[in-house]
Amino acid sequence: MEHRGAPTIFDTVPLDALRRRTSQKWRRYPPDVLPMYVAEMDVPQPEPVVRAVSDAMRAGDTGYVFGPAYAEALAAFATDRYGWEVPVAGCRLVPDVMLGIVEVLQLVTDPGDAVVVNPPVYPPFVQFVEHAGRRPVTAPLTPDGRLDLAALERAFADATAGGRRAAYLLCHPHNPTGTLHTGAELAAVGALAEQSGVRVVADEIHAPLVTGTDTDTDTGTGTSTGVAGRPLPFVPTTTVVPSAIALHSASKAFNLAGLKAAVAVPGPDAVADLARMPEIVLHGVSHLGAIAHATALRDCGSWLDDVLSGLRSNQHLLADLLAEHLPAAVWTPPDATYFAWLDLRGVPAVRDGADPARLLLERGRLAVNPGPTFGAEQGAGFVRLNLAASAATICEGVRRATAALT
Amino acid sequence: MEHRGAPTIFDTVPLDALRRRTSQKWRRYPPDVLPMYVAEMDVPQPEPVVRAVSDAMRAGDTGYVFGPAYAEALAAFATDRYGWEVPVAGCRLVPDVMLGIVEVLQLVTDPGDAVVVNPPVYPPFVQFVEHAGRRPVTAPLTPDGRLDLAALERAFADATAGGRRAAYLLCHPHNPTGTLHTGAELAAVGALAEQSGVRVVADEIHAPLVTGTDTDTDTGTGTSTGVAGRPLPFVPTTTVVPSAIALHSASKAFNLAGLKAAVAVPGPDAVADLARMPEIVLHGVSHLGAIAHATALRDCGSWLDDVLSGLRSNQHLLADLLAEHLPAAVWTPPDATYFAWLDLRGVPAVRDGADPARLLLERGRLAVNPGPTFGAEQGAGFVRLNLAASAATICEGVRRATAALT
Repeated sequence: MEHRGAPTIFDTVPLDALRRRTSQKWRRYPPDVLPMYVAEMDVPQPEPVVRAVSDAMRAGDTGYVFGPAYAEALAAFATDRYGWEVPVAGCRLVPDVMLGIVEVLQLVTDPGDAVVVNPPVYPPFVQFVEHAGRRPVTAPLTPDGRLDLAALERAFADATAGGRRAAYLLCHPHNPTGTLHTGAELAAVGALAEQSGVRVVADEIHAPLVTGTDTDTDTGTGTSTGVAGRPLPFVPTTTVVPSAIALHSASKAFNLAGLKAAVAVPGPDAVADLARMPEIVLHGVSHLGAIAHATALRDCGSWLDDVLSGLRSNQHLLADLLAEHLPAAVWTPPDATYFAWLDLRGVPAVRDGADPARLLLERGRLAVNPGPTFGAEQGAGFVRLNLAASAATICEGVRRATAALT
Repeated sequence: MEHRGAPTIFDTVPLDALRRRTSQKWRRYPPDVLPMYVAEMDVPQPEPVVRAVSDAMRAGDTGYVFGPAYAEALAAFATDRYGWEVPVAGCRLVPDVMLGIVEVLQLVTDPGDAVVVNPPVYPPFVQFVEHAGRRPVTAPLTPDGRLDLAALERAFADATAGGRRAAYLLCHPHNPTGTLHTGAELAAVGALAEQSGVRVVADEIHAPLVTGTDTDTDTGTGTSTGVAGRPLPFVPTTTVVPSAIALHSASKAFNLAGLKAAVAVPGPDAVADLARMPEIVLHGVSHLGAIAHATALRDCGSWLDDVLSGLRSNQHLLADLLAEHLPAAVWTPPDATYFAWLDLRGVPAVRDGADPARLLLERGRLAVNPGPTFGAEQGAGFVRLNLAASAATICEGVRRATAALT
C-alpha cells in the first residue's frame, strides 16, 4: 500500500519526531500502536507562532492577558476568509471553546434547563453540558450527516416544555462528520430556534478547516489530485441567526490545543447578553495562548492553505485506499475538518456486534476514536479517523485496519 | 531617594524592556503611570522554562496534555522545599488555581452552600465563589493579619446552619497580607472545621514565596541586607488537615500567570473526593502550561532563590523608605508573597475618606491594587503594592506615593 501523490505539509515531520512529542496522541498508547485518533495534527508549528511564543517567553511577557489583539486578529482573518465582519468591541476572550460554551450557556439558560445537541457529536458537548448542570436533549443528524429539521423541532419543543429557557449547541462545521452547514440550513435552524425561544450557541472552531470545493462532485472516485474548484463558503452562524453566540479559536486549525484561548462572538442581537458575562472569566485566559492564536490568525495564512491542500490530498488518498482494500468501509469525503467518520457497519465482525475501534486497537494496533463515544446509537459501528497525518501513516493505518477487519 | 544595596534579580530587566511587555501590568495604564499592582513580577523568565516552551513549540508538541509530569515535578519540589510527600497518583491537573478551586468546591458543596473566606483576601475568591453559585461568608483576619479562630467558629456555624454542606477557602500564605499560617494555626482551623463539618480548600499558590526567616525579628528596623536566618517553614495544609484539598501551581512564584496550569492535591482523607472530579476537567488544561510549570519546579530552584533574596532585599528597602519618607504608612514586612499590604489610614487625606489607591493613581501616577477590592471594610485605607520590582521602581514608587499623599 503506497502513496504516489505529491508530498504535503503532513509529510514533513518524520514519525520518530512525532513519537517524541509528549502530548496525549503520542503518549496514551505504547509505541507499537499507530495513533490516528485525538484532534492533534501531525504538522510542524508555523514558524511565526513558534517565534512569537519564544520571543514572549524570552521577554518575560508571561503575565495576565490584556487587550483586544486576539479578537482583532480573528476579525481580520474572518473578513479575509469568510467575508464576515466580527464585532470586536462586543467579543469576549474565554479560556477555551468548551469553557467558553459553558459560560455562554450560563448566560442563556438556568440550571436544569435543556441543551439540544446533534449526535453523533464531539463527546465533550454532552459531558460539559451535564457538568454545567444542564440536560442534554438529542436531535440526531440525518443518516447522511445533515441537520434534521424535524428532529430539531421536536427537540426544541421538548427542551422548552413548561416555558423553560433552552439552548441549542450547534457544531459548525460538524465534528465528527465534517458536515459544513449551508446558509439555508442555518436560516431554517434560526427560524425554528426563534419560534421556540431556543438560543443558538455555535462552536465554530473548525471554521478555518473547510476543504470542500464547488467542483467536488467527483470526490472519492479515485483521483488523488483532483482539480480544485472554488472553496465552499463557511457561513458564520451569527450572520444568519442574529441572536446566536459563536465560539472561535485558532486552536484546532493551527494545532494549538495545548496553548488555549478562544473568542466568544455575539450576533447583532446577542451583544447585551454576552456583555453580562462576568469579567472574572477573563482571569482564566492564557496570555501566551492569546499571543499564539493571534499570530496564527494574522501571519499563518499560507501555512493554513498548505494544511487545507494536504487534507484534500489525504481525503482522496483515503478514499482510494478504502475503495481498493476495505470496500466494506463506507465514507464520502466531507467538506470540512480533518476527520474521517467511517461507517464500518458492513464489516462482518462489526455486523456481529464488535466495536470496530476495539478491533482496530487490539488486532491492528491502530488507535481511532470509538464511534459510540459520539452518541451510543448513532455512533455504533463507526470510528473517527484523524487524517491530519502523513500519506505514509494513512497507508499504514489502512493496512492495519484491513488486516484487523478482514 | 536612592537605593544603595546590592542589585538583585529584580534589577536585571530595564524599565523600557518591561514597558514592551504586552500583559495587563504594562498595558492597562498609559506610560506615565508606574505599575506596581497586579501579580506579575518584573523578572526575566528562568532560562530552562524559556527553552522548554520554545523547544516544545519548535517540535509541534502542542497537543493535549497527558501524564503525571507536572504532578511529579511538584512532588519533587515539595519534598525538597517543604519536606512534604505529595501523593502523585491522587493529584489531578486543573486549568489554573481558581478554576481548580471552583471544581473542588463543586465536589464538596452544593449550589447555594456557603464558602467561608478571610477578608482582606484576593478578590477572585469572592467573585469565583459567587459565579459558582455559592455564598461567601466572611471571617475577617485579626487586625495583625492572623487567622481569627473565634470569627472562623462563628462563620462555620453560620455556613453550616440547617445542616448544609460548606467549605472554607483558605489562602496560605495569605494574599494580600503575606501572612504565613503556622502549623498550630492550621491544626486549630482543622479541628474547628472537622467539628463543624466544613471542608477546607487551600490555595497554596504562594507557598514557594516564603521570605521570612527565624531571625527576622529585626525586620524593618533599617537594615537593607539583614543577616538571613533559617527560612520559616511552609506547612502544607493537607499535612495538618487530612480532609483538605490544596491547589498548587508554579504560576505565581515563577511568573507564569500567562501560561496556566495547576495541580489539585488531596489530603489523606480527601483522595476519594478528588477522584470524583470529572475527567472532562482535564480537557481545559494547557499542555504548554504543564510543560512550563514542571520545568520551573524541576530546574529553576536557584532562580527562585534569587527571587526570594531579592524580595527580602526589597522588603527591607521599602521599610527603610517608608520610615524615612512616609512615616504615616504602617507596614511590617510579611513572611511570604511579594506584596506589601500598606495601611495608609494615618495619611490625613485618607483619614478624611479618600481612597488611597485613587490618590496614588491620580496625583502620583502610581498604580496599586485598591484595598477595598480585598474586602470593603477590612481594605478601606489600605493598598496592595507589588514588590517584585527593581529597587529603582520601588524608590520611584515611594517618591510618587510621598508626593501624592503628603
